[in-house]
Amino acid sequence: MTCVRPDLYEAEFMPSFERELKLIAGIKEWTGSPFIGDDCAVLPGRGLVTTDTLVEGTHFRLEWTDLLALGWKACAVNLSDIAAMAGRPRFLTVALTMPGNFGTSELRSLYLGLCDCAARYRARIVGGDLTSGEKLVINVTAMGDVHEAGIMRRSTASVGEIVVVTGSFGGSGAALSLLNRLSQSETRPGPLGASLIPLALLRPGSHSQKLLQMHFRPEPRLSSAWHLVELTGGRGSLMDASDGLADGLVQIARASGVAMTIDLDKIPVPEAVYEYSRQWQKDPLAFALYGGEDYELVGTVPEELLPELLKLDPSFSPIGVVREGRSGEVMFREGGKISERLTGFADLSNCFQHFW
Amino acid sequence: MTCVRPDLYEAEFMPSFERELKLIAGIKEWTGSPFIGDDCAVLPGRGLVTTDTLVEGTHFRLEWTDLLALGWKACAVNLSDIAAMAGRPRFLTVALTMPGNFGTSELRSLYLGLCDCAARYRARIVGGDLTSGEKLVINVTAMGDVHEAGIMRRSTASVGEIVVVTGSFGGSGAALSLLNRLSQSETRPGPLGASLIPLALLRPGSHSQKLLQMHFRPEPRLSSAWHLVELTGGRGSLMDASDGLADGLVQIARASGVAMTIDLDKIPVPEAVYEYSRQWQKDPLAFALYGGEDYELVGTVPEELLPELLKLDPSFSPIGVVREGRSGEVMFREGGKISERLTGFADLSNCFQHFW
Repeated sequence: MTCVRPDLYEAEFMPSFERELKLIAGIKEWTGSPFIGDDCAVLPGRGLVTTDTLVEGTHFRLEWTDLLALGWKACAVNLSDIAAMAGRPRFLTVALTMPGNFGTSELRSLYLGLCDCAARYRARIVGGDLTSGEKLVINVTAMGDVHEAGIMRRSTASVGEIVVVTGSFGGSGAALSLLNRLSQSETRPGPLGASLIPLALLRPGSHSQKLLQMHFRPEPRLSSAWHLVELTGGRGSLMDASDGLADGLVQIARASGVAMTIDLDKIPVPEAVYEYSRQWQKDPLAFALYGGEDYELVGTVPEELLPELLKLDPSFSPIGVVREGRSGEVMFREGGKISERLTGFADLSNCFQHFW
Repeated sequence: MTCVRPDLYEAEFMPSFERELKLIAGIKEWTGSPFIGDDCAVLPGRGLVTTDTLVEGTHFRLEWTDLLALGWKACAVNLSDIAAMAGRPRFLTVALTMPGNFGTSELRSLYLGLCDCAARYRARIVGGDLTSGEKLVINVTAMGDVHEAGIMRRSTASVGEIVVVTGSFGGSGAALSLLNRLSQSETRPGPLGASLIPLALLRPGSHSQKLLQMHFRPEPRLSSAWHLVELTGGRGSLMDASDGLADGLVQIARASGVAMTIDLDKIPVPEAVYEYSRQWQKDPLAFALYGGEDYELVGTVPEELLPELLKLDPSFSPIGVVREGRSGEVMFREGGKISERLTGFADLSNCFQHFW
């Protein structure tokens, strides 16, 4: 399950990477549950289950989004956790906490977004709960079937395997930076759920529009995960990298007791992120590694299967190797040399705090 | 699934009974889901699933409760929905939104309460999600097995059946009234999760202590539901009456297309509720019918099976009959005569608003 993620535009409230790991270790101890540690729990006779929550003020601001897009995203972030185990989504429940000004038409927009995403990926909303509260909170629990070819996990990366990712990284983080910039200059009060994003940003084909699309309309990488598991039968490893690529790499390396070396110049970063970074003197790799919310997958694959994987599914890119070393150690190489700048992971949260 | 319930101590924010029904009808339409309408969804090959959320400020106040009790209750309210379908609870996920001052020790207390209740009823916590937000929000999704003898539903009550309830009604509502009274006179700031309830109220055996116990420590009626389904094989009907007994009766009558006549003097109301009502000039039946949060079951049973049910499980009481009439009409009889006072259900929310 994905847990506390950095609030990129409210860095002061952001729990650190290490604090999150400590809380999850506590929950494992208190519950004695052997099911915790992957993106989904694998339940005997019942397949996969995962739950993820979007909280107003933490994960979204109503003045930056519309409710259709928010509904889509609340569904997609859960399906991304099913994809991380290479499962097939089946059923969703939706528990909503609604503020007083949330009426039937707002609820309808949110649900149409949820249903749109669910239908796109052949899942069904089967029930839910409605409660009142000060802020909008959208919790989705997703249930899925295990793929007949196997289950992908975080803890099964082996030395010698190639580190792969789907799609590209940094778009969602750069979009948040852009929105944050806007909110400092141009925010004004508006009706509930009415997007205040200037129309110029939404001009089709503009870099800004591409960034916002990546942030507001994530596509869970289900078919890529199925391609991978059909090829490997569950060998290698996989997880959802939605807390940032760096977090994903460290989580897999720790869970598997291995180390990794990553080539920074192989990390796929969209042109729009480079463009935005040039304009505002930002580091595009910082968005990719620490930005989060890209809803891409990161994993490892046996070296001999890599050529076939890349042929089967061109959304995968190799970015490094699994090697022996201290469990959880991730080293970054730039132009063939170990990069000083990004070697340390003692406190990832420091990185976040410096970037925004 | 249980939905928006009245906020007894914040009547001005309370969505009405009819509004709730309208929103749920909307969700059924937008999702096209055939699974919505009972306390749990019954999923092909996967058993029962239900989800319920407790929201700070709506369902609880941290100064009135402790976190162990809150954890217990967050679990129990979901198991009560599994009981309503006569299912067997198996797995739980817990999605928490935590305010900034919620640390490891608070999380631990909450989880120990959750685990305590789960273990008591042989369910396991298998995963969850942690997010940050301004208020504490506790969402639990519970999965269960269908009982081998059958499934109990809301929509299968038949004319001639006897209306039965488990346990007693009104204790939780009277406790809220008591707490509300206290908060107007004695609330003072205190540490997070430290109960501010005066110790005198908690004196073992006092009426106040009994009321608070009913409010803070609900026991889901799983074994009673199993007794019922073993006897009936799924005939009759059942639901969780946690939004108040009146709501439960109307919901079953509407879903089944029948009417009911209920004998007010047969509704089991605890002595502590009578005691509290005498002291503060309250109507004990109002607590029972509209108070909510008693987490008892209400249902109907074929008349010929009633004697055996009462022998098998003395927690059941017969309180009325299912009869022909306008779908959803519930009439109350007092001393053999139709009670004017409580016949109408055009707007249940008016009742709530007058009582507090």
